[in-house]
Amino acid sequence: MINVTIYNEFYHEKVNEKVASIYPNGIHKAIGELLSVDPEFNIRYATLDDISETLTDEILDTTDVLFWWGHVRHHLVPDEIVEKVCQRVYDGMGFIPVHSGHFSKPFKKLMGMSCNLKWRETEDKERIWSIEPYHPIAYGVPEYFDIPHEETYGERFDIPTPEDVIFIGNFSGGEVFRSGITYHRGLGKIFYFQPGHETYPIYHMPVVGTILRNAAHWCYTPKTATPYTLGFWEKR
Amino acid sequence: MINVTIYNEFYHEKVNEKVASIYPNGIHKAIGELLSVDPEFNIRYATLDDISETLTDEILDTTDVLFWWGHVRHHLVPDEIVEKVCQRVYDGMGFIPVHSGHFSKPFKKLMGMSCNLKWRETEDKERIWSIEPYHPIAYGVPEYFDIPHEETYGERFDIPTPEDVIFIGNFSGGEVFRSGITYHRGLGKIFYFQPGHETYPIYHMPVVGTILRNAAHWCYTPKTATPYTLGFWEKR
Amino acid sequence: MINVTIYNEFYHEKVNEKVASIYPNGIHKAIGELLSVDPEFNIRYATLDDISETLTDEILDTTDVLFWWGHVRHHLVPDEIVEKVCQRVYDGMGFIPVHSGHFSKPFKKLMGMSCNLKWRETEDKERIWSIEPYHPIAYGVPEYFDIPHEETYGERFDIPTPEDVIFIGNFSGGEVFRSGITYHRGLGKIFYFQPGHETYPIYHMPVVGTILRNAAHWCYTPKTATPYTLGFWEKR
Amino acid sequence: MINVTIYNEFYHEKVNEKVASIYPNGIHKAIGELLSVDPEFNIRYATLDDISETLTDEILDTTDVLFWWGHVRHHLVPDEIVEKVCQRVYDGMGFIPVHSGHFSKPFKKLMGMSCNLKWRETEDKERIWSIEPYHPIAYGVPEYFDIPHEETYGERFDIPTPEDVIFIGNFSGGEVFRSGITYHRGLGKIFYFQPGHETYPIYHMPVVGTILRNAAHWCYTPKTATPYTLGFWEKR
Repeated sequence: MINVTIYNEFYHEKVNEKVASIYPNGIHKAIGELLSVDPEFNIRYATLDDISETLTDEILDTTDVLFWWGHVRHHLVPDEIVEKVCQRVYDGMGFIPVHSGHFSKPFKKLMGMSCNLKWRETEDKERIWSIEPYHPIAYGVPEYFDIPHEETYGERFDIPTPEDVIFIGNFSGGEVFRSGITYHRGLGKIFYFQPGHETYPIYHMPVVGTILRNAAHWCYTPKTATPYTLGFWEKR
Repeated sequence: MINVTIYNEFYHEKVNEKVASIYPNGIHKAIGELLSVDPEFNIRYATLDDISETLTDEILDTTDVLFWWGHVRHHLVPDEIVEKVCQRVYDGMGFIPVHSGHFSKPFKKLMGMSCNLKWRETEDKERIWSIEPYHPIAYGVPEYFDIPHEETYGERFDIPTPEDVIFIGNFSGGEVFRSGITYHRGLGKIFYFQPGHETYPIYHMPVVGTILRNAAHWCYTPKTATPYTLGFWEKR
Repeated sequence: MINVTIYNEFYHEKVNEKVASIYPNGIHKAIGELLSVDPEFNIRYATLDDISETLTDEILDTTDVLFWWGHVRHHLVPDEIVEKVCQRVYDGMGFIPVHSGHFSKPFKKLMGMSCNLKWRETEDKERIWSIEPYHPIAYGVPEYFDIPHEETYGERFDIPTPEDVIFIGNFSGGEVFRSGITYHRGLGKIFYFQPGHETYPIYHMPVVGTILRNAAHWCYTPKTATPYTLGFWEKR
Repeated sequence: MINVTIYNEFYHEKVNEKVASIYPNGIHKAIGELLSVDPEFNIRYATLDDISETLTDEILDTTDVLFWWGHVRHHLVPDEIVEKVCQRVYDGMGFIPVHSGHFSKPFKKLMGMSCNLKWRETEDKERIWSIEPYHPIAYGVPEYFDIPHEETYGERFDIPTPEDVIFIGNFSGGEVFRSGITYHRGLGKIFYFQPGHETYPIYHMPVVGTILRNAAHWCYTPKTATPYTLGFWEKR
């Protein structure tokens, strides 16, 4: 059993009709539906409105993998929760920021950089290439797949060099983007995935489900993995 | 079920009494015993004497992970078998050369380098540190473990920069060595592990068993992982 | 003074009118002209026809950086020269295969892989993004530049994970490609650069000159850099 | 001309007789002396006491490479200066934290991790191996060198995977340590170097001078390197 918590800012869905029509129950529930195909995931949800009850110490301590979708309300996430999320990553929690989650406080802190990128909303088509099929996150993913319309994200994506660049996106407007990348920080594995603008039904695409399920498995570190000792050390 | 094949040169055990007393059935069988704790492994063996029957096309095609121990008879391994082993790695077979397997023909070809290193037989003690506990190959491994006596391997180990350096060894004579390292080539995952000189009972150590079992799991790529297309391509 | 040798297969220019009109003196001379802006380069040329006189031991020993353009006659390069080129890379010679040089014997041997890729000749436009502006090879290169027509090269490019991916290309047909990548093997630094199909005047573009000059500087290792000792080693 | 600024906490030298006897003018001046062999460096100094005058905006803006030695007074460095230092790194300033500078605020922020390590003061000998002689920071450095006594630093060093591990230390007490490592963040190049405990005359060793001069050259990014554009982007 892998305990997954899916955080969503859950704002656009409540104020924008188009978004509401695509994600009537919120983006978090759509991601949850993609994951629920796999009975090994035990899924909980958190949104900005209820964050003080849904990202508590107890929930974070029992979360194996945390998904994060946020966009215009990153600044409202309390710093002490950000601190705890990062600490849990160091201790082994998997972390999967998606789309505009590149600008979430925990991701920026874990990366130590601006995580800025070029962007534009012009209905570009994105073709995503699987360039590292050896990686478990790419299992079952075809050599490429198309997203008919997606917000354009373009390089320079201002991040540390990823450990693996699994997916690269070609945008019809001419941009490229490292669309699926991995890191680890301490014991925690991290996967950032670019697709998922709120105005397109991207979290209803089966191939995105394959990737997110693969990612949740890959980012999972069992609690029995040996903890390590840091700091002053007399033994020799 | 993961199909593991363990190749051993199987020479020292037949001509050197000390080695024979440590590994009466050969190093391959000792490694096999370490793996057999896990019922998910289906284990076959291959040695230099029977290599034309034990590393056939059929066996290689049904091997998920190949271990390789060799030392003074690397040059006797037929080039066409080396070619097939490398091809299978590209196609997804895991490959785990151990100890002097750094000089095996398939490893050198896959690395594109000399894979040379410093060495000396002076009964050094080796202390191996687990420096990347996040990695599945390090799960359950303590922060360090000692090998009372081991042939000294020292840097510069002439290899491409590893993708992960999981273990680093401290030798009592003053050397250091990247003792557990990963790569991938095509779809195939590779783990090189330094311990295992034939004159010491290293493949009877439980912690080495933990590492080799972890490695066999990590190096396994299911055949259902999407194959990729290379070469001329009309579609657009 | 950096001794540069530019190898070119020099075949298309002699049999294809279009290519001859673009590169009347051969691609090697066009690359040489791009480099000659910098007085620090001492330039020599080698072609397949004269390879036994132009890639001799003496010339290779005094070559600091070797450029390599080849396409349909890779198989005619003698294996003993390939061996010597690789050996010189291990000893510190810089190596810069360009365009279809991805399939040259030395590059494939140094990579230990097929180095295959998708390709197609359909007059695509390529937009190349500089995604790692920190790298000396990217100095002075704008955030992107366009090549009006280029042979399409597409991922999966079957190579080991590069140390740095400096440039990524967006092809108008929908492909992406890691168009500028670095490695090192032994003491030798390697830069592969994708642009340069023989039927387009790409080696007349100033920005390509900037990149190739930067690359020649970056790939240069002075002979006074400390040599290292490999192999059996008594000292302790 | 490369503008180097050397920051030192400058505390131990004023309160500890042993340290004062080794570094009568402060560690910063000792590092400066090592660098001054090379006339290309224009050297300025900064200490904690005068930090508001010596790490001003104007000085940081004209600093190409910043060295950083700190130990017990990291917490007294003002956060707004930390912020500016990080910003300057993103914009291209080289950054070279040494020894206990692994715990400096700018390094921890740039790494996004604890940067913790094992340590012990037991007069261990450290033997440092140059494992990547290809790297310009290793030019002229022998395959190993000994530091007769050094504070022991041991793995797990809690950092992101380095881009290059150039030096690894073997401590006589049994530890290993990644003693010379590189990163980049934005346009800025970073080199962390472990040797330099205040109670040993390590910054008087010629080989350490070679390494620090090499590092200052390698970390230097000319201001003429193309700046890159981040953020919203209409062009297509």
